[in-house]
Amino acid sequence: MILEEKLQGVERAIEGFYETKQIAPRLVESILYSVHAGGKRIRPLLLLELLEAFHAPILEAHFQVAVALEMIHTGSLIHDDLPAMDNDDYRRGQLTNHKKFGEDLAILAGDSLFLDAFGCVAEADLPASIRVQLIALLSDASGTAGMVAGQVLDMEGEGASLTLDQLQVIHANKTGRLLAYPFQAAGILLELEPAVATLLEEIGLHLGLAFQIRDDILDVTADFASLGKTPQKDLQAEKSTYPALLGLDGAQAYLDRELDACEDLLDRISNQVSFDGTGIKNIIERLRIHGQGKS
Amino acid sequence: MILEEKLQGVERAIEGFYETKQIAPRLVESILYSVHAGGKRIRPLLLLELLEAFHAPILEAHFQVAVALEMIHTGSLIHDDLPAMDNDDYRRGQLTNHKKFGEDLAILAGDSLFLDAFGCVAEADLPASIRVQLIALLSDASGTAGMVAGQVLDMEGEGASLTLDQLQVIHANKTGRLLAYPFQAAGILLELEPAVATLLEEIGLHLGLAFQIRDDILDVTADFASLGKTPQKDLQAEKSTYPALLGLDGAQAYLDRELDACEDLLDRISNQVSFDGTGIKNIIERLRIHGQGKS
Repeated sequence: MILEEKLQGVERAIEGFYETKQIAPRLVESILYSVHAGGKRIRPLLLLELLEAFHAPILEAHFQVAVALEMIHTGSLIHDDLPAMDNDDYRRGQLTNHKKFGEDLAILAGDSLFLDAFGCVAEADLPASIRVQLIALLSDASGTAGMVAGQVLDMEGEGASLTLDQLQVIHANKTGRLLAYPFQAAGILLELEPAVATLLEEIGLHLGLAFQIRDDILDVTADFASLGKTPQKDLQAEKSTYPALLGLDGAQAYLDRELDACEDLLDRISNQVSFDGTGIKNIIERLRIHGQGKS
Repeated sequence: MILEEKLQGVERAIEGFYETKQIAPRLVESILYSVHAGGKRIRPLLLLELLEAFHAPILEAHFQVAVALEMIHTGSLIHDDLPAMDNDDYRRGQLTNHKKFGEDLAILAGDSLFLDAFGCVAEADLPASIRVQLIALLSDASGTAGMVAGQVLDMEGEGASLTLDQLQVIHANKTGRLLAYPFQAAGILLELEPAVATLLEEIGLHLGLAFQIRDDILDVTADFASLGKTPQKDLQAEKSTYPALLGLDGAQAYLDRELDACEDLLDRISNQVSFDGTGIKNIIERLRIHGQGKS
């Protein structure tokens, strides 16, 4: 399945989910505004690419799992942008949800995305035992034991000077858990043997870290047009970042090391089972930053 | 099991869930502040009373389902109180979450409660097929097809003059769906025959409506001490309410009719299967308002 088909399948699954839920049309409008606001769908694509890498047919149910993950990610972005949080007016070059629909509807749109996501998995055409595992993991990765915990630590760290270790804990939770989810979900969906599932999980952790380092670098180096949102927000918020701790060159080298580690792990999986990591490697390669640094 | 034991079991299940999730202690503190802020636990108690009414033993897993429902209810209250929403400083006689912990943490505490709830059910010691049914229903009842939709319609209705029918749609979603959940969940947990499950669902709908009528009446008639929050908020927000549409006597009569309907349906179940509705009737009777009206 080519990339375009995967992206279309993701759109179709989201539209399908909300098509029948038109009690409050303005709520659905606000949800779909943010869902369609130009996200690159990295998390859903990672899951779908992984399934293909293991030569599994991609089923409608897989799209539903992929979409549930994107729903939680989108809900978290809507809430992150709120005035009481990061107070961003733009996201991916468009007005943020609360700037477009008002703060009250933005809060409720995020809430709905969180609450809907689990129904989306629960209703997928998969064995019940697989669905509950996927749901338990999605909840753990996103709530008090995962993403939200990371957001709180991130908030608490503003203005403080953090060590690299403290920064890792924040990002392993804030960004890492949902980025590791496709790798863990693939293991659950394909009922992979523990040795392979563990390698997959390791990739997820490295990739999550790489993502955050990249985000920090871009916040320093990119302008509004390429970032799609206000740059230098971290600096304003006095956040500890990888460039601040390691320098821009150091952060860039760290990013490359983490992406290399992902690719090495993909090769190790190929050596153990029938696995074609090309699609995943393409996604990983797109995360490298070349010549954008100030140095 | 006496009421006190049920309440203790609910506390134990919540504490147990959060005990191991201490990545961001302040987040857990903020969550537990609102969870413990004097809620009457009507929704969990309804589920536990129903299970007992059918002579089922109450298992640890049942507490987890009951608690998941309370988590979503609590999350919605935290977000409802936010400045961008109802802007309430007090809830149940205590400072609201954002007044105590700040708006950012209050948003995240609500988010976490929504995200955690589904993990709480997914990890319960019940057959997987039952867990996915409970999760699918909880998601449907709370998200874009349920509670949140009702909240949006309620918001949109402020300042507008609504018909009784429009008011019913708002409340059937905003309050009704989560109040009907224990009745539907009991049907799923006990794998009841459809005829009985349908009667249970009907009770849930009547009870949800009764709850909202009662809330509207108390907003007009009660003072801060008995309400635990600022009264007359509906009037200020120019909301259509049952007392406004039907008069205080009319609303009171409507409340009694809905509660009577619940009790009649309980009797009908007792006529069909071995069912002792005493515990549920006690909860229902406590919802009647006597001599508090201005009339």
